[in-house]
Amino acid sequence: MANPVLVEVLRGDLVESVHRGAVVVVDGDGKQVWAMGDAQQQVFPRSAVKAIQALPFVESGTADAYGFGDRELALACSSHSGEVAHAELANAMLAKAGLDVDALECGAHWPSNHGATIALARSGASPSALHNNCSGKHSAFVCTCRHLGIAHQGYVRPEHRFQEMVRETMEAVTGARHDEANRGIDGCSIPTFAVPLQNLALGFARMVTGNGLGADRAGAARRLMSACMSEPFLVAGTDRADTELMQTAPGRIFVKVGAEGVFCAAVPELGLGIALKCDDGAGRAAEVMIAAALARLLAADEALSGTMKKAANPVLRNWNGIEVASLRPSAAFG
Amino acid sequence: MANPVLVEVLRGDLVESVHRGAVVVVDGDGKQVWAMGDAQQQVFPRSAVKAIQALPFVESGTADAYGFGDRELALACSSHSGEVAHAELANAMLAKAGLDVDALECGAHWPSNHGATIALARSGASPSALHNNCSGKHSAFVCTCRHLGIAHQGYVRPEHRFQEMVRETMEAVTGARHDEANRGIDGCSIPTFAVPLQNLALGFARMVTGNGLGADRAGAARRLMSACMSEPFLVAGTDRADTELMQTAPGRIFVKVGAEGVFCAAVPELGLGIALKCDDGAGRAAEVMIAAALARLLAADEALSGTMKKAANPVLRNWNGIEVASLRPSAAFG
Repeated sequence: MANPVLVEVLRGDLVESVHRGAVVVVDGDGKQVWAMGDAQQQVFPRSAVKAIQALPFVESGTADAYGFGDRELALACSSHSGEVAHAELANAMLAKAGLDVDALECGAHWPSNHGATIALARSGASPSALHNNCSGKHSAFVCTCRHLGIAHQGYVRPEHRFQEMVRETMEAVTGARHDEANRGIDGCSIPTFAVPLQNLALGFARMVTGNGLGADRAGAARRLMSACMSEPFLVAGTDRADTELMQTAPGRIFVKVGAEGVFCAAVPELGLGIALKCDDGAGRAAEVMIAAALARLLAADEALSGTMKKAANPVLRNWNGIEVASLRPSAAFG
Repeated sequence: MANPVLVEVLRGDLVESVHRGAVVVVDGDGKQVWAMGDAQQQVFPRSAVKAIQALPFVESGTADAYGFGDRELALACSSHSGEVAHAELANAMLAKAGLDVDALECGAHWPSNHGATIALARSGASPSALHNNCSGKHSAFVCTCRHLGIAHQGYVRPEHRFQEMVRETMEAVTGARHDEANRGIDGCSIPTFAVPLQNLALGFARMVTGNGLGADRAGAARRLMSACMSEPFLVAGTDRADTELMQTAPGRIFVKVGAEGVFCAAVPELGLGIALKCDDGAGRAAEVMIAAALARLLAADEALSGTMKKAANPVLRNWNGIEVASLRPSAAFG
């Protein structure tokens, strides 16, 4: 059965496009609190699980050994826009471990922030792997290898000892199988594993409640969640949904986008984890879905819920600044 | 009822995302030859109908008066990538009518071609309305106003005499109502009208067969279709689907993309028009759909059909050049 329409795109008053998808909310014990669409569908989380993938970086003592604080932890969990602050911090992390950009195996691309691309081009420079949206995660990866005395070369490959650590961590936190049968390759060349959407929500419920993680892992999870909520600009960047949603309610909401229409989130005060997937992979729709889901879950706080509702109803302007279109959550959100 | 899944996005061997949509094929008499999904759904054609909107430019004698040939006619029908050749030709068209970039009311944006954006930034320049993907159409609009002695100022507004001509032309060619009730504003600020998908297919069937258009309009339509098929680079640009599909079979296929997942096409030798809309507005899926539809319609020509099938099955590589994903038409295409 088709997932429900969760987002409508309007041009004037007429619906121009629609986006279907699934949303699931669970508590730290894995109990489903709310769901729309197929909560069991297999979803590649892509970058949405970077905070879980960053657990070995903290648990291994790497972050402490190199003196990394909230800023570096946030960047380790980021899909950043390649702005100057992001690239410079990734470079500084590598330097602490005696490494440089050559250690990164994520590939180079122009900054996703358009202004940063124009500025870089005007400076006569070309982008490096530091501008790759995953450079913070990859820097954390190679720093961890260095701290553990593992040769970092080839760290992106599934058979590398470090990727094996990441895979085991993902399996333990989400409770879902991660093996060759559900493995794909992500944009930054590391493995990504398709797991039931509900397990992604469970993973983030555990990240904020610590349920079932054990004391050490629960502590590392709390540090990472807290770091992202304290440094939301470093998790994404200028005009990015992750940054703006977390800035709305400092310390109260964690959100993280993944490619192909994935969003994961957690609300510490409610002890809930959220995962959603837009069927067609559209980021614009996933942003509306996560804001609408948060508006509903946080209904008791009218001001915050109102801010989330506003974020869930963006207006699109054309090149002359005229309002031409808008997005809105469908009636399915209630 | 939901439209069928027409495109699947795979990561490795697993389906990561899906795109639904509708496709309809009609002949010059309006007879439906083939359809999947809702052929009657209201669709904003956006830029897919630029060739029809360009009819007054030819019918009024403007193109002839200024000595415009295939290149200028193709650019008038284009959604170009803002490359040097596109911006320069739009500028030259304006100059023939004694106008310049200030006459354009489409707004400025950076070229959609990434290399063109980097080159422009490196040159220290900023984009103008000539780089707007619609600058060819807008140049043709203001040239037509000039030739007809109509003040061009405000030509993008629905109540302007020139937009009224365009609206009447669209209504006559597609056979669908165009009025305030189904009107939206396009990205370039001109009106766009939501009409049944089947009427868009009919419009393009008429553009290549001339059926029901009268001799003068049929001649103008033939000139515009022929110009686009002769100058496919000017209709879109480097690495663009419109350009590459038309280059595949010179003079035998007309295709034109529209925003939000619309594609229109025509096959002169079959006397058919095609229109499709991806429900969620994804261009990547609309490109697969149009290539798959053409592969099916042109099955009698095995070589050409094979080329279209290949275009309908693109492979996606990551920043390291590794094959990570692919798109394919769903089984619905048969």
